Amino acid sequence: MKSFYPEKRLLMGPGPSDVHPRVLEAMARPTLGHLDPDFQELMEEIKGGLKELFKTENRMTFPVSAPGSAGMESCFVNLVEEGDVVVVVKNGVFGERMRQNVLRSGGVPVLVDVEWGTAPDPALIEDALKANPQAKILAFVHAETSTGVCADAEALCALAKNYGCLTIVDAVTSLGGIPVLVDEWGIDAIYSGSQKCLSCTPGLSPVSFSEAALEKIKNRTSLVRSWFLDLTLVMDYWEGEGGRSYHHTAPVNALYGLHESLVMLFEEGLEATWKRHRETHEMLVSGLADIGLSLLVDEAVRLPQLNAVSVPEGVDEAAVRSRMLNDHGIEIGAGLGPLAGKIWRIGLMGNAARPESVKRCLEGLSASLAAGHNS
Amino acid sequence: MKSFYPEKRLLMGPGPSDVHPRVLEAMARPTLGHLDPDFQELMEEIKGGLKELFKTENRMTFPVSAPGSAGMESCFVNLVEEGDVVVVVKNGVFGERMRQNVLRSGGVPVLVDVEWGTAPDPALIEDALKANPQAKILAFVHAETSTGVCADAEALCALAKNYGCLTIVDAVTSLGGIPVLVDEWGIDAIYSGSQKCLSCTPGLSPVSFSEAALEKIKNRTSLVRSWFLDLTLVMDYWEGEGGRSYHHTAPVNALYGLHESLVMLFEEGLEATWKRHRETHEMLVSGLADIGLSLLVDEAVRLPQLNAVSVPEGVDEAAVRSRMLNDHGIEIGAGLGPLAGKIWRIGLMGNAARPESVKRCLEGLSASLAAGHNS
Repeated sequence: MKSFYPEKRLLMGPGPSDVHPRVLEAMARPTLGHLDPDFQELMEEIKGGLKELFKTENRMTFPVSAPGSAGMESCFVNLVEEGDVVVVVKNGVFGERMRQNVLRSGGVPVLVDVEWGTAPDPALIEDALKANPQAKILAFVHAETSTGVCADAEALCALAKNYGCLTIVDAVTSLGGIPVLVDEWGIDAIYSGSQKCLSCTPGLSPVSFSEAALEKIKNRTSLVRSWFLDLTLVMDYWEGEGGRSYHHTAPVNALYGLHESLVMLFEEGLEATWKRHRETHEMLVSGLADIGLSLLVDEAVRLPQLNAVSVPEGVDEAAVRSRMLNDHGIEIGAGLGPLAGKIWRIGLMGNAARPESVKRCLEGLSASLAAGHNS
Repeated sequence: MKSFYPEKRLLMGPGPSDVHPRVLEAMARPTLGHLDPDFQELMEEIKGGLKELFKTENRMTFPVSAPGSAGMESCFVNLVEEGDVVVVVKNGVFGERMRQNVLRSGGVPVLVDVEWGTAPDPALIEDALKANPQAKILAFVHAETSTGVCADAEALCALAKNYGCLTIVDAVTSLGGIPVLVDEWGIDAIYSGSQKCLSCTPGLSPVSFSEAALEKIKNRTSLVRSWFLDLTLVMDYWEGEGGRSYHHTAPVNALYGLHESLVMLFEEGLEATWKRHRETHEMLVSGLADIGLSLLVDEAVRLPQLNAVSVPEGVDEAAVRSRMLNDHGIEIGAGLGPLAGKIWRIGLMGNAARPESVKRCLEGLSASLAAGHNS
């Protein structure tokens, strides 16, 4: 075994996205103990930053010490009790994962199956809520990373409230790239990931829980099925009025990275960040059209930060991705599930959402497609 | 919010332990995609290194993408099915956590309660196994971080085999500091942490599962209660014969750090590392005696890497810890549970297990105790 020196890639896939050098530098700073007073101040700042980012006053707002999938599990395992009916909207990979989470938490999922690449129609969701009056939770994906579709989170949350349901929202790819307004929309439990629009390394999952969500957790009659993710225990560490108590050992250096990415985000300003994502997206779409490529998703529901590009007839999609990586040092993503082989996924997230990245990506794509035609 | 520049502490508590600068540097290298071919080579090297470290041929040997508590949960949630009786040995904080894990996995724990600060007597464990012939698993802590006691893992595993039980072993604090011989001792599921004797940052949990453990998982009749930790899914990513498939996004940069810590460990040699831990421990014990301090745990079952030092009568233990941190830049740990206020925990783990650290720690303790007497 020898020390590992990775090449510098431009990460324009579905995540991890390009990490800013300032975040990497922050991660290399000296490790503090997880109960060190200085580290506890850092924790407070991270909580404050995440509240600002999520646009919420929720006191239970903190990063789960594991990737986005654990953030998802944190929401389901705490909120779902045995027998709870949960309406799950599925229009891609992550809706299916939500369904799995309901099952493993002992709940009963009611699936609303929506075509991949399209947004859930609120009327369909209302039908499902009407047909399942015993449902306690509506779960859906705000920004579906597998297709590049944006759901109307505000409308779906309003519906859920009308039918007496709490909401669990996947904001892994949306947070930091487009507006995510937890309090205004009335989201009850939300999770995201550090490795998308926050320009941070993978491994952490910011989450936030409303008072209504905490009330449901408080009234549980059965043990949370995970000790590691049990919110009441985790919060003794992250909140700990009158002294934090040890739960698990926090990933100290990863949290330095998340903190630095929040510092950078607020230096730029949240609105300015959203604008940059939208503008680089427009630049990409226009450049793609110039080389004869189009997007899978209708303009009205497209995510700026995740672009599903249709693979033209007769083009070997894997060969193009491979040339992008090996000849141009750019990572773009493949399609998943029914979209495997049919799309490329080009991420414009965080630090990758810059005009120079779009330019390099378009040049690389153009050359990689031409190389395919010539071979 | 401003960038965070932590002071450099000497970490001699129960973990995280002092991280080597080479590990920190490695973590700051450019992030690769979690499916990048170069990253997959790194994953193979990490798996190989962990097999060597655990002294095992188990193919299911890899780091869980979360701290040691999630590694623990990974063992229990996969191996324990509803109604499974699990004999749990408790002689400190982590035995109790194991019991919680059994409950949350739907199993029935049978607790063998052993006095804190002492090692489990194999005869007592045999009584419990005899009295519970339906038991399927024996779970115990090899190196109890809350007390500094080492259990006779070899003897306990042999007993478990005699009574037809699989074993789950907590090696969070032992791995890398003292011998952990998974195949020779016949351990079926074992978990550790990156932040103890491996000199790496917190956030990862190396685990290993025997073929017998995998057989029990294969024959499960109910879903694993965690999607994130479901071994059969995780291994599609970590093993993936014929192509890895996406499960969750691996914490890429944290894995760079673990890789570098393994590189350093094998540069020194595993036996040499164990020897260094033992020798610095002896140096510490002798130096503590010189300033009138003694250890809680009997010499025969002491862990070299975690030293429970009895707080002398009349000394304010928290004030001493606080002076150590603020005046000397050294973190040492407090006692937990029934040992709160009665012991300090001095870690000699990984990079902290060096003569110069022992010297600094003894000087700091001496001065901090004197400051207490003078005030």
